[in-house]
Amino acid sequence: MDRYKIVMQYDGENFKGFQVQPEKRTVQGELERVLTSLLKENVKIYASGRTDSGVSAKAQVAHFDTECTFDEKKMLSSINAFLPEDIAITSLEKVTDEFDARFSAKRKTYQYRFYVSKFELPLYKKTALRVNDYVDIEKMKEGAKYIIGTHDFRSFVASKSGKTDFVRTVYDAKIVKHDDTLYAFEITGNGFLYNMVRILFGTLLMIGYGKRKPEDMEKIIKQEDRQMAGKTMPAHALLLKSVDYETEI
Amino acid sequence: MDRYKIVMQYDGENFKGFQVQPEKRTVQGELERVLTSLLKENVKIYASGRTDSGVSAKAQVAHFDTECTFDEKKMLSSINAFLPEDIAITSLEKVTDEFDARFSAKRKTYQYRFYVSKFELPLYKKTALRVNDYVDIEKMKEGAKYIIGTHDFRSFVASKSGKTDFVRTVYDAKIVKHDDTLYAFEITGNGFLYNMVRILFGTLLMIGYGKRKPEDMEKIIKQEDRQMAGKTMPAHALLLKSVDYETEI
Repeated sequence: MDRYKIVMQYDGENFKGFQVQPEKRTVQGELERVLTSLLKENVKIYASGRTDSGVSAKAQVAHFDTECTFDEKKMLSSINAFLPEDIAITSLEKVTDEFDARFSAKRKTYQYRFYVSKFELPLYKKTALRVNDYVDIEKMKEGAKYIIGTHDFRSFVASKSGKTDFVRTVYDAKIVKHDDTLYAFEITGNGFLYNMVRILFGTLLMIGYGKRKPEDMEKIIKQEDRQMAGKTMPAHALLLKSVDYETEI
Repeated sequence: MDRYKIVMQYDGENFKGFQVQPEKRTVQGELERVLTSLLKENVKIYASGRTDSGVSAKAQVAHFDTECTFDEKKMLSSINAFLPEDIAITSLEKVTDEFDARFSAKRKTYQYRFYVSKFELPLYKKTALRVNDYVDIEKMKEGAKYIIGTHDFRSFVASKSGKTDFVRTVYDAKIVKHDDTLYAFEITGNGFLYNMVRILFGTLLMIGYGKRKPEDMEKIIKQEDRQMAGKTMPAHALLLKSVDYETEI
């Protein structure tokens, strides 16, 4: 049995998320279908983590095991030839069976993209959230700093999450400017709770709109109460940017 | 009669270009339809220049004349409410009748976006051209420098152009890096010939692929022969970034 690590990019718009669900079009479902058909054995994909319905990934990582042997370059081309247009594998490499896409992951980086405009803009609306032009970006930048560190993030988790451990470490959280109207909230951590990035951004937006002060972010974290944080912002503006493995096995 | 300047953004994907054509969906056509209906008089739009079928604009500029008087803020909202999703007006302001969107324009900036990858990538393919990963970006950067200056650009014009004056001044031409895979060829000039940016990029790509040397760009310009330059590259990756008017009237 050989284990392979794959890196993939997908446009989440037309997927019901990453994880296989009966009768639904999912990233995992499409990948397993193509790999099972090419390798002529049942292939199961294990990703670094799920992404929700509508969420895109620039470099999601997964692994799979197979009894087959093949030329990696040719197999990479074949997989891409059979995958639909909204998924692409950017690398395929053999790894030892100590590598686990989920448990070996050390850091993940998400981007929540937004643009500042009075009106919906055709070039941004599909991949970014519109934010009103009276938003105070500097206040959002200040608020983001309080997110960094090891905290109990239960204020920022969807109520339907079954998790009981809410402690995560955020290594970096900042507002990045892409051009005169486009920005992103970029966050790197050792893991994220269900909807955590989208709720954190909703909270930063309350700060940007002056409904809360930047330093309230610290209080909201400490209150450990979902009611204190902002709304869960829409999925289409969220991107899994990268998954890092300190030591590539 | 009052003259208004508008700035607009559009996603070119589903338009047969800017200019009105019978039975075709064009940006000008959609705008004139909405303005004519809102102002209850025949409105004609004069843009800084046409963009081709499939080409997008981040900030195209146009003007129109009207006998109507209206509140500019409210009118801006109304226009956007009636425009289809792939066009938005970002500003509307009264100008003197000395302002002409086309003839007062001093500089235009276009971006030709490309990404470096062995495979088509879902997040980039709609708005950028895929370039093979053996491309030499440094050579393209060198080649781009020769474009700057006042030259006869007839080597880079579509044969169906009816123009007889091929001299244009390019103030800046460079390769800009957006992220680890995404780049843009960005060019600013006092005006551009039909397909000029797309042919210039095709020529830079020959240089990037090692088929021509960077300094050959100078020769190709001097040869004044369309056959010497590269292919006309696809429209979907071209974006009109801005139009500048030195003194806003």
